[in-house]
Amino acid sequence: MAAAADRRLERYAELAVRVGANVAEGQTVFISSEPAHLLLARALTRAAYAAGAAYVDVLYRDPHIRHAMVEYGPDAALAYTPEWLKVRAREGAGNANIATVGDAEPTLFADLDPERVGRARMTELAEIALGQLGEHSVNWTAVACPTAQWAEQIFGEPDLERLWDAVAFAVRLDEADPVAAWRGHIRELKGRAEQLNALHLDAVRYRGPGTDLTVGLLECSLWRAPEDETVSGITFVPNMPTEEVFTTPDCRRADGVVASTRPLALLGDVVEGLTLTLQAGLIVDVKATRGADLVRTQLETDEGSARLGELALVDGTSRVGETGLTFWNTLFDENAACHIAWGAAIPGTVRDREGDGVNVSSVHTDFMVGSDELEVDGLAADGRTVPLLRRNAWQLES
Amino acid sequence: MAAAADRRLERYAELAVRVGANVAEGQTVFISSEPAHLLLARALTRAAYAAGAAYVDVLYRDPHIRHAMVEYGPDAALAYTPEWLKVRAREGAGNANIATVGDAEPTLFADLDPERVGRARMTELAEIALGQLGEHSVNWTAVACPTAQWAEQIFGEPDLERLWDAVAFAVRLDEADPVAAWRGHIRELKGRAEQLNALHLDAVRYRGPGTDLTVGLLECSLWRAPEDETVSGITFVPNMPTEEVFTTPDCRRADGVVASTRPLALLGDVVEGLTLTLQAGLIVDVKATRGADLVRTQLETDEGSARLGELALVDGTSRVGETGLTFWNTLFDENAACHIAWGAAIPGTVRDREGDGVNVSSVHTDFMVGSDELEVDGLAADGRTVPLLRRNAWQLES
Repeated sequence: MAAAADRRLERYAELAVRVGANVAEGQTVFISSEPAHLLLARALTRAAYAAGAAYVDVLYRDPHIRHAMVEYGPDAALAYTPEWLKVRAREGAGNANIATVGDAEPTLFADLDPERVGRARMTELAEIALGQLGEHSVNWTAVACPTAQWAEQIFGEPDLERLWDAVAFAVRLDEADPVAAWRGHIRELKGRAEQLNALHLDAVRYRGPGTDLTVGLLECSLWRAPEDETVSGITFVPNMPTEEVFTTPDCRRADGVVASTRPLALLGDVVEGLTLTLQAGLIVDVKATRGADLVRTQLETDEGSARLGELALVDGTSRVGETGLTFWNTLFDENAACHIAWGAAIPGTVRDREGDGVNVSSVHTDFMVGSDELEVDGLAADGRTVPLLRRNAWQLES
Repeated sequence: MAAAADRRLERYAELAVRVGANVAEGQTVFISSEPAHLLLARALTRAAYAAGAAYVDVLYRDPHIRHAMVEYGPDAALAYTPEWLKVRAREGAGNANIATVGDAEPTLFADLDPERVGRARMTELAEIALGQLGEHSVNWTAVACPTAQWAEQIFGEPDLERLWDAVAFAVRLDEADPVAAWRGHIRELKGRAEQLNALHLDAVRYRGPGTDLTVGLLECSLWRAPEDETVSGITFVPNMPTEEVFTTPDCRRADGVVASTRPLALLGDVVEGLTLTLQAGLIVDVKATRGADLVRTQLETDEGSARLGELALVDGTSRVGETGLTFWNTLFDENAACHIAWGAAIPGTVRDREGDGVNVSSVHTDFMVGSDELEVDGLAADGRTVPLLRRNAWQLES
C-alpha cells in the first residue's frame, strides 16, 4: 500500500476511535469486522491501544460461513446462537464497540431460499445489543470499510481508490482537522434537533412521487442528533458518516403510501422499487420490483416488526448526498436522504423510557424516502403546517 | 479459481472432515482458522454440514491483531484470555475441532521484543485444550492451508500452485481414493508402533553430526501411531499429514547434545542452528544461530517446559520427506524427519495416565533432529542395542 493510503487508513481509524466510539482509557474495545476489512480492523486495533484500551478483541464475521449454514445446515442451526457469542456480547457493557460495515457482496444471499435467510437470525444477540442500547452502557460506532467488491457494486468496476475518496469525503477526512470538523457538524445537527423539539409537532407528512404518508408523533417524542452518551458519561457518535436528526413516531398512527427512493440492502440481497401501504400504524401491503418477499419475511418477525420505529430527516447538504452516489449500504444511503425505519424505536428518542406507542421489535430496518421532489411538513398540535424540507433544503431558520 | 482447484479444495476439506476429525452426525464443529485461509475454512464448513454437523462455528485468528497487542497493548493484555474464548473452548468437549495452520508470515513477530512475545500466551486456553486432550473428549485434526506468502517463504516466490501440489501430495490427495490410502497408511504406522512396543525399550539413542543424545523411556511408555479415539468411540487422525510413531520419554533421563536439523517456527519467528545440551532430563544449555532467546523464553514458562515430552520417529518414505522441501511449518517439517519435543507429554502415550517421569507443561514444541546421517538405536532393558533408523530407512522388519 502506498504511504498516503496508509496514512489515510490510520487517520480514519483514529477518527473512529477518538470521535466515533470515543474509547476511554482502560476500556476493552470489541471490534466486529469481516475478513475483507482486515486492514481497517488492524488499524482500529492500533488506534484503540494508542487511546489506552486495556484489550482489543476483534471478531471477524464471514458472511460466506453464514451462507453455507443457510444452504447446507439443519433447520435448528438457523436461529442458533452459540453461548460464547452471548458471553462476549454481555462483556460489552461498560466497554467500547466498533463495527466495520460495508457489504463486500450485497447480493451474496440472493441465491438462497428467502424464508431460510429470514429465519437465520441470532435473536438472542440482538436482544443483548438492544438491552445495552437501552441502558446506554456501551460507547459504540459503525464505520464502513471500502473494498474492491463494494466499489464494483457502486461504480460497475472495482475502483477501490474512488470509493476510498468518496468515503473519506463523507467522513470529513479531507478536512485539515477532522476531529474539529466533526465537533462543528454535530453541533449543527443538535441545533436542528432543538428547532424541531421547539415546534412540538403532532405528526410529520411526506409527499412526493408515489408517496403521501402522515406519521403521528408522541407527546414524548424527542428529536435527536446522532451523539449519544453512556451512563458513565462518555459521549460518542454511533455512525460515521451521520447526517440525520431523528425521532420516534407513534407506532399506532401512520396512514398512507410511501415509496422508497433508493435500493435497500436487506438480508443478503437488494430490495428495489419498494412501496409500503400503512393503516393505523401497520404496514398492510408491500410491493417491490425486487425482494418484496424479503421485506415480508422480516415484517413477520414479531409483533412490532410491521410498525414504524424511526423518522429521520436529512437534507441535501449531507456530505453523503453531495457525492451523488448510491452506496447500496444503509450506513451511507440513510445519510444521503430522509429515511424511515420499521421495527424497534431508538432508545433516547422519547422523553419517557417506555410507553404506549413506542415500538418494540428485534428488527430495525431503515429505508430511504428522501429525494429532490419529496416535501416534508411538520403538523403542529395547534393545526399549523410547518415546511421542514423542500427541494432537499432545510426550511427552518438556523 | 479454476474448476480443478475448486474440486481439489473440496476434496481436501472432505478428507479433513471425514478422515481427520471424522465429524459425527449432530456434532458442533469448531473451526479455528485465519483470514488468509478463508477459502479452506468455507470449504470445511460446507463439508462439515454435508457430514451432518449440527452447527459449524468458525473463528478467524488474525496474527496481526496479536502483533498489535504485543507492540502497543499494556502489560496486562499479554496473558489475558477473554472469558468468551474459554467458554467456546469448553464447549468443544464432545464435539469436533478442525484447525487450519500454515503460517502465512512465519517471521511476523520477529520485530517485537522476544520477552513480550514469550509472555503473550493464553495459558488458560492451553490448559482447557490439554484437559480435553487428556479426557479424549474432542475428535480433532489440523490441516495446512497453502497461501502465496507461505509459498514465498518456501520457494522464494509466491508460487501458490506449487505449494498446493506439495500439500496435496503430502496428504495423499493425488490418490484415486484418498480415504482408502489413509486407512492403509495408518495401518502401516500402527504396525511400526506394535513392533516398537514389543521391544520393551529402556532408552533411545540418537547419533549424528552435532548429536549424541540418549533419552530414557518409562516402563509405561507406549509407542503410538497418530490415530486417536474419543471416549465416545470416534476414531480420528489429529494431523494431516502425519507420518510418525511417537512415545513419551522419562523426563528425568536425557543426557547429551542434540542438534536440530531444520529451522523451527516459534512464537512468530524462526529458530535456526539450534543445539540443546541436556543433563538428567533438563535442557541446561541453548545455542542457536538465530532465535536462541525465543527458545530460552519458552523453556522458562513452567517447571516442565525445559524437559522432554515426546520422541517421534519418521523415516525417509514419509510423503513430506519425499518432497525434499523445508516447509518452515511444524505440521509438515515434523513429519519429514525424526523429532523431539520439549514440554508436555502427549496423552495416550503412557499405559498409566500419570506418573513420575511423565512431563507436565503448558507448552509443547517439536524440533526436528532427523537427517540421512542420523542413526537412531533402541536400547533394550536387557542391554541389547536395536538399530531403528539408518540413512533414514526403517530397520525393523515389517
